[in-house]
Amino acid sequence: MIISPPPIQTDFHFDILYQSKRSRARVGRIYTPHGIIDTPNFVAVGTNGSLKALHNHDLQDLQLMFCNTYHFMVQPGTALVKQAGGLHRFISRNQPIITDSGGFQVFSLAYGQVAKELKGQGGKKHANSVLKISEEGVLFRSYRDGAKIFLSPETSVQAQKDLGADIIIPLDELLPFHVDAEKLNASFKRTHRWELRSLHAHLQQRQQQAMFAVVHGGTNVELRQQSCAILTKEDFDGFAIGGSLGCDHEQLLTTVAATTPCLPIEKPIHLLGIGDLPAMSQCITHGIDTFDSSYPTKAGRHGMLLAKNGPVKILQSKYAADFSPIEEHCPCITCTHYSRAYLHHLFKANEPSSASLATAHNLSFMLRWMAQRRLDILCGLI
Amino acid sequence: MIISPPPIQTDFHFDILYQSKRSRARVGRIYTPHGIIDTPNFVAVGTNGSLKALHNHDLQDLQLMFCNTYHFMVQPGTALVKQAGGLHRFISRNQPIITDSGGFQVFSLAYGQVAKELKGQGGKKHANSVLKISEEGVLFRSYRDGAKIFLSPETSVQAQKDLGADIIIPLDELLPFHVDAEKLNASFKRTHRWELRSLHAHLQQRQQQAMFAVVHGGTNVELRQQSCAILTKEDFDGFAIGGSLGCDHEQLLTTVAATTPCLPIEKPIHLLGIGDLPAMSQCITHGIDTFDSSYPTKAGRHGMLLAKNGPVKILQSKYAADFSPIEEHCPCITCTHYSRAYLHHLFKANEPSSASLATAHNLSFMLRWMAQRRLDILCGLI
Repeated sequence: MIISPPPIQTDFHFDILYQSKRSRARVGRIYTPHGIIDTPNFVAVGTNGSLKALHNHDLQDLQLMFCNTYHFMVQPGTALVKQAGGLHRFISRNQPIITDSGGFQVFSLAYGQVAKELKGQGGKKHANSVLKISEEGVLFRSYRDGAKIFLSPETSVQAQKDLGADIIIPLDELLPFHVDAEKLNASFKRTHRWELRSLHAHLQQRQQQAMFAVVHGGTNVELRQQSCAILTKEDFDGFAIGGSLGCDHEQLLTTVAATTPCLPIEKPIHLLGIGDLPAMSQCITHGIDTFDSSYPTKAGRHGMLLAKNGPVKILQSKYAADFSPIEEHCPCITCTHYSRAYLHHLFKANEPSSASLATAHNLSFMLRWMAQRRLDILCGLI
Repeated sequence: MIISPPPIQTDFHFDILYQSKRSRARVGRIYTPHGIIDTPNFVAVGTNGSLKALHNHDLQDLQLMFCNTYHFMVQPGTALVKQAGGLHRFISRNQPIITDSGGFQVFSLAYGQVAKELKGQGGKKHANSVLKISEEGVLFRSYRDGAKIFLSPETSVQAQKDLGADIIIPLDELLPFHVDAEKLNASFKRTHRWELRSLHAHLQQRQQQAMFAVVHGGTNVELRQQSCAILTKEDFDGFAIGGSLGCDHEQLLTTVAATTPCLPIEKPIHLLGIGDLPAMSQCITHGIDTFDSSYPTKAGRHGMLLAKNGPVKILQSKYAADFSPIEEHCPCITCTHYSRAYLHHLFKANEPSSASLATAHNLSFMLRWMAQRRLDILCGLI
């Protein structure tokens, strides 16, 4: 018999528990119908409703999980998830979930690897899966069965209503990194029209969900500020910084630093797709509350184990006879039971459990790293 | 800090708690230095010291795990495991472990897929990894790095001493299914010489380990009985039925039925490599106490989920919207949290957690199936 999730707890709101006097950093709490998210915090990516290599009751400390609407639209379909009683029930996660609009993946397919482009690594155009982009929305083909799927602000929101995540995202348009001013400007305007249409659709059937607007404008500080001016006039519950964040650490920080002061202090701010420690460390001082990234899970599956003194590349031969844990005082299931030598062996032998143990450690590391940042803010160090 | 295993509990012995009056079936307990094995029971295969897709603290109910000496010889080397404090400590398993001699894998490589041949499915000869077979032992090349490894009764036992499993197996020679009488006879004699050399090597440094002899003779009942006559004269702690068991269910049962009455009633009997329910059901009535097989774990990874009314092939589209668990009253982590529809989705999406959840269920099923057999014996039904 499948154990039912507990009843919904509270409506969405954000409390700031402590505001740093040294920076924009703050310690807060996001209340959602499925529980609390302490901020600053890390949001792990479970694209298809499961972290890769861990199931949803393996890691109870994860306060917020990021699922991808695009993937659920393609498989098994959001209507089926609705029929199951919503995403929490379907995937058996009783804690908060955030879904995106599906736009990122659709445009990824349109422009090659948008993610790479966002990071300034170039990328080739593979427009074949996107059939048509218009004011109305995007028509694309499912990578799974070739079926035509229409993604518009309204269909994206409807999909996210079916899924029923605690936090949802309006449809936006992502442009590749290198485009001329005219194209950027047209995209900039349309993405905001789409966000407002998404908000309108959302507010017609709120369902206790919160919607975070996505701030755009690429690395153009003026456009970022314009974006904030447009979006902060509307009834969004929080903000996510999206779009191109430049091609290096400096551009990322400049962009974030110029954006967060234009957002209302009383609402939570998410930074989309950033998970490296130095970047997160600095972005926290600019007032970012949550970060999502597949980095710790992906890195773990490839044998890169996070540790205070820099990552342990467990496949290196120096770990073959190292009988200490990844990190001496780490409380995770991996470090309390298994040595580096055993993990090295599992990776060498291509045992699937290597991915689970590495993922469990890396996420535990990220969550503890964030807990330490919260303490640092409270202690006046950040 | 890695939690140390508890101290060793007891020396090896076997207690029969109840002997069926209807058959040779019995309910027993195998006591080992790392805990008790209730019999009849199922032994899951963790070739490299980990069940595929589950780590060693995921499934606490598994009383005995089967590890493959050959794989540990090749990677990371049994000397390294010894240096780690033995297999239990290296893989962080505080419950009983059985290791084989390494012979099966070496001869598998020599004769193509011995496993297939044992089941009468034919197989091609790939002798290139075995360099030389002599009275002394087998010289073979590591599949990993091409290093030459010499496997003899003495080196196999030494490897198993390094590993330190609770139950170990003497080196035997496996012949393919279709050989002439002369070859079978020569192999038959040599395999028994190897087993006695193995026992001799073992008894020189017992280390609280038990050694189970391997009964040979293929499907020739007379040879099986001769094998029992030779082996039961020696100081083995238990017996395993190995070698070719024929090409169908009938031959398997005939062979087992002719063999177990020639073995001492007071010692445990293991059947090597058999894990299908109808075969196990009948073999229990012939007095088999333990069975190992990679079937439930492998089947699980391929979406075949065991259930009382026959396996659930979870990738079938009829499960896409089936919100019930695999089995309604199954207490496993999978059935208490996830629906068939979600599992169907995870398998369709190739999520690695599908393998973990399927494996957890299938092993839970096997262990509960065995617990039910023990009850059936106690209730006089078997």
